Amino acid sequence: MAIDCMGGDYGPHVTVPSAVKYLHSDPEVDIILVGIPDVIEAELRALDMPLSSRMRLHAASEVVGMDEPPALALRNKKDSSMRVAINLVKNGEAQACISAGNTGALLATSRFVLKTIHGIDRPALAVVLPTIKGHTYILDLGANVNCTAEHLLQFGMMGAMLVSSVENKKDPSIGLLNIGEEDIKGNEVVKQAAELLRDSGLNFYGNIEGNDIYKGTTDVVVCDGFVGNVALKTSEGVAQMLATFLRQEFKRNIFTKFAGFVALPVINAFKRRVDHREYNGASLLGLRGIVIKSHGSADKHAFCAAIKRGAEEVRGGMLCHISKHIAELQHNTQKSKFNSATVE
Amino acid sequence: MAIDCMGGDYGPHVTVPSAVKYLHSDPEVDIILVGIPDVIEAELRALDMPLSSRMRLHAASEVVGMDEPPALALRNKKDSSMRVAINLVKNGEAQACISAGNTGALLATSRFVLKTIHGIDRPALAVVLPTIKGHTYILDLGANVNCTAEHLLQFGMMGAMLVSSVENKKDPSIGLLNIGEEDIKGNEVVKQAAELLRDSGLNFYGNIEGNDIYKGTTDVVVCDGFVGNVALKTSEGVAQMLATFLRQEFKRNIFTKFAGFVALPVINAFKRRVDHREYNGASLLGLRGIVIKSHGSADKHAFCAAIKRGAEEVRGGMLCHISKHIAELQHNTQKSKFNSATVE
Repeated sequence: MAIDCMGGDYGPHVTVPSAVKYLHSDPEVDIILVGIPDVIEAELRALDMPLSSRMRLHAASEVVGMDEPPALALRNKKDSSMRVAINLVKNGEAQACISAGNTGALLATSRFVLKTIHGIDRPALAVVLPTIKGHTYILDLGANVNCTAEHLLQFGMMGAMLVSSVENKKDPSIGLLNIGEEDIKGNEVVKQAAELLRDSGLNFYGNIEGNDIYKGTTDVVVCDGFVGNVALKTSEGVAQMLATFLRQEFKRNIFTKFAGFVALPVINAFKRRVDHREYNGASLLGLRGIVIKSHGSADKHAFCAAIKRGAEEVRGGMLCHISKHIAELQHNTQKSKFNSATVE
Repeated sequence: MAIDCMGGDYGPHVTVPSAVKYLHSDPEVDIILVGIPDVIEAELRALDMPLSSRMRLHAASEVVGMDEPPALALRNKKDSSMRVAINLVKNGEAQACISAGNTGALLATSRFVLKTIHGIDRPALAVVLPTIKGHTYILDLGANVNCTAEHLLQFGMMGAMLVSSVENKKDPSIGLLNIGEEDIKGNEVVKQAAELLRDSGLNFYGNIEGNDIYKGTTDVVVCDGFVGNVALKTSEGVAQMLATFLRQEFKRNIFTKFAGFVALPVINAFKRRVDHREYNGASLLGLRGIVIKSHGSADKHAFCAAIKRGAEEVRGGMLCHISKHIAELQHNTQKSKFNSATVE
């Protein structure tokens, strides 16, 4: 696993200790720390952790700024820790790249360096979210703001392959995010995507609505990047507001503070259950390599979760799954087009 | 106020007692109960409430089913309680219509009977949501799945006029829901809408993200109906999941149950604060009349909130505000088009 050590709001202060911690927890994984050697070595010395055969350092002289325009980073920073880490994946020296850096730059650089899998038009960002039943995978979350029905079909397939590789689940169910369950609902792109998904041979559940995400109605939720991004950030907003209100109510007076004291273990158990750090790590799907985007503000716990996600995708053979199924998908879609043409 | 007594999951069992309750709380309001006389009279008898000069009955012989296709309801049910209630608004006998009936039918019938205000292309659905700071108004929520930049501009203006009428707030701030704050983010429609809003003379804050809705960053949140509907239903889903998790944690064992008992008053205060019934009632904006859509499953408390919303829009003179400002808006937009043409 190649770790872009310089990315994220806290850079090596978080990425290096996280990598060390993860290395201890997962004996199957080797780590390549990518970045400015002096800085990484200083972090390792502070941790009293020497480099080893399982953890080596790969120098990169530049750093992509968190607010740097992606196009500039792509053009001017050919020796950035991000780009070098992605190159290691391309060259087969690493099986996955984990970065907490600039999202736009990571998307642009990954796409430019790794290219998309044959048959996939655009990469998509996928994350796991908690649900009442367990968890669900949602994509796209902002990599694509203008999607065609074919893109949504590809997202559905890639999401299903992600779930079947990582969760070892056969035929994961796919829901299409819409504004009603009926076929007549939604805009033209979504209506066409529903038809394509229905004919795809995938386990298509049908249209679902926003509340179905957290009900856990389907294993995969498909939407365009605009809608997915709004849904995700709106969810964060609701959770933050409810947490604020709950805190305020418990702090209202001496009686409520006492109630808060008594309820603290329960509240803490509840918090652990919805701890967003556990869900850190968005997968860039559709590339010829595994790339995981960690939240920029991730702490060690969260960044470890992102490394783990990368390791699971490698172990699950996700890339093979996607490559194999894109061929089947194209075959099915062609067949269904042919059939409907024959019927007409 | 004309009440469509037959609409909603519970029909007159909820609408009639709600109307009676609201009548007592608001001495300025008179009510017209619209629906099948026998059924309404039976409800009134059960409440021991006679008709009066402030509460009269207007017969309608038909009922629109909750799952009935809107086009069929519009064509075939000319004497439905919904249509008759809307007709009363058109004829000036009522200042507003409140219905918990079929959303699609209410939208189609309102638009057909009342028509849009001159200069408004499409009506939009707006609701109030709680925020950390207070509350915010969001539109559209599903009346329009394909919007142009001009539609979003009109939604912004209508939302602002709703807030200034109902909240008596001068120059409410308008946020455009997007996937990033920077001008370059989002799809073409949103980028163009931002330009139009910037030149509109309205108090345009700029782009906002999903989490800004519940932070209360702006008084009004503008988005297309697809995105708004997903955001709203996703919010409901998150809140339901968190409530379920909290309940489960408090029910885990005898100690957590005790903690739950001690914390009950705090939890109840919290629940009251985010009680969705208080926020019931979506406004159909842009029509030549005030129409409020209540949730189909509203109980008496929630349906009363919807009636109150209608009364507040009437008292705030919302229709006048919108009509007046659409003229100004068109003037400003023309001027800005002219200016940019001159500069070019």
